[in-house]
Amino acid sequence: MKLYDDRDPAPNPRRVRIFLREKGLEIPLVNVPLAEGRHKAPEFLAKNSLGQLPVLELDDGTTLSESVSICRYLEALHPEPPLFGRDPAESARIDMWIRRVEFRVMQPAGMIWVHLHPFTAAYAASQGRAQFKDFGESNWKVFAGACRWLDREIAGHEFVAGDRYSMADIVLQTTVDFGAAIGIDLPADCAKLAGWYERVRARPSAALDLSRFPVEQARKALGR
Amino acid sequence: MKLYDDRDPAPNPRRVRIFLREKGLEIPLVNVPLAEGRHKAPEFLAKNSLGQLPVLELDDGTTLSESVSICRYLEALHPEPPLFGRDPAESARIDMWIRRVEFRVMQPAGMIWVHLHPFTAAYAASQGRAQFKDFGESNWKVFAGACRWLDREIAGHEFVAGDRYSMADIVLQTTVDFGAAIGIDLPADCAKLAGWYERVRARPSAALDLSRFPVEQARKALGR
Repeated sequence: MKLYDDRDPAPNPRRVRIFLREKGLEIPLVNVPLAEGRHKAPEFLAKNSLGQLPVLELDDGTTLSESVSICRYLEALHPEPPLFGRDPAESARIDMWIRRVEFRVMQPAGMIWVHLHPFTAAYAASQGRAQFKDFGESNWKVFAGACRWLDREIAGHEFVAGDRYSMADIVLQTTVDFGAAIGIDLPADCAKLAGWYERVRARPSAALDLSRFPVEQARKALGR
Repeated sequence: MKLYDDRDPAPNPRRVRIFLREKGLEIPLVNVPLAEGRHKAPEFLAKNSLGQLPVLELDDGTTLSESVSICRYLEALHPEPPLFGRDPAESARIDMWIRRVEFRVMQPAGMIWVHLHPFTAAYAASQGRAQFKDFGESNWKVFAGACRWLDREIAGHEFVAGDRYSMADIVLQTTVDFGAAIGIDLPADCAKLAGWYERVRARPSAALDLSRFPVEQARKALGR
């Protein structure tokens, strides 16, 4: 088994690395530098026709993509500690929260990144793709609204899906960390969410050293 | 247990109804008419703070939302016939395909619906939300590209995730059916995908009578 992977702060590969550390698992990593476009090379497209990281290659040569699906597979092989739930109700609740974080919080942050961020403008142009700035701008409000909703939902819970750390925390943390690295910060009035963020960042599996990224430059470029 | 639900062609409630028929399960249904905005009423928001259907209410009064998470829960209680896979590798592959369909195919169709469709313009305005027409238009190309990619991927397989019908087929079929009902058709050159669509539509669980919807009017409104 090996994992095709890239460095921080790309959120999807990072989800699997955090998951592996929480599980105490080691899998050989193969670096596919996104910045060099190596994920769009023919030999990589043969592993994932979407040209995205991460990809898990099994010992029979078949491949599996989508970070959450890869982690789900690893959980089935190595159930302890459970990060996708201990019983049907808890598992469904964690799954629901993974989806809510992806569709509600990650989605508008991604739209700001793709349609508004100066760091992605050249890449969009190289793909013959426009950045729709007005649409991008509209996502600030959507993102802030989603964070405030989450702030209310997380009140009284230690973690996203309840009182146990789970895959939903990994999905949210990699989103918030990625946002922080590219200049998309949590709204200042989300105290419960900020408390949760401190709790997950304190875990040995999951620290992201934001000083490694040009955060101030990104914020300025976004006009924040 | 009861399921809060609405009528066709809303794709998310429909996923659960198809799943139930494939499983041979019956759950009492409670209609929450989306067209009347009843999913935004306080008593419903107490069940799902996002104000979305479907919602499954368990016998202990707790609720679960997100169509795929609801089906996953029901699969854990009623494993046969398996629609989320029989072993870790197949389960992960089905999960990967659910995600690919949602992020790649459903996403641009949804953006056309939300940002371009005359049927949603009044609703957007009532929520103080703009329709970003140029961005909406750009999603036609994204949607067609995703369908063509899927057409290549499905070649040689009976169903989306391989040779067994699964939740991934339900997620894709409800997407394609919803598109067809609102004037977003599969590109004419996707013969493999069209063949798959005929196969799943032929199942007793999953027929959608498109003659019930103003398809021609929708196509014209979208300029197709």
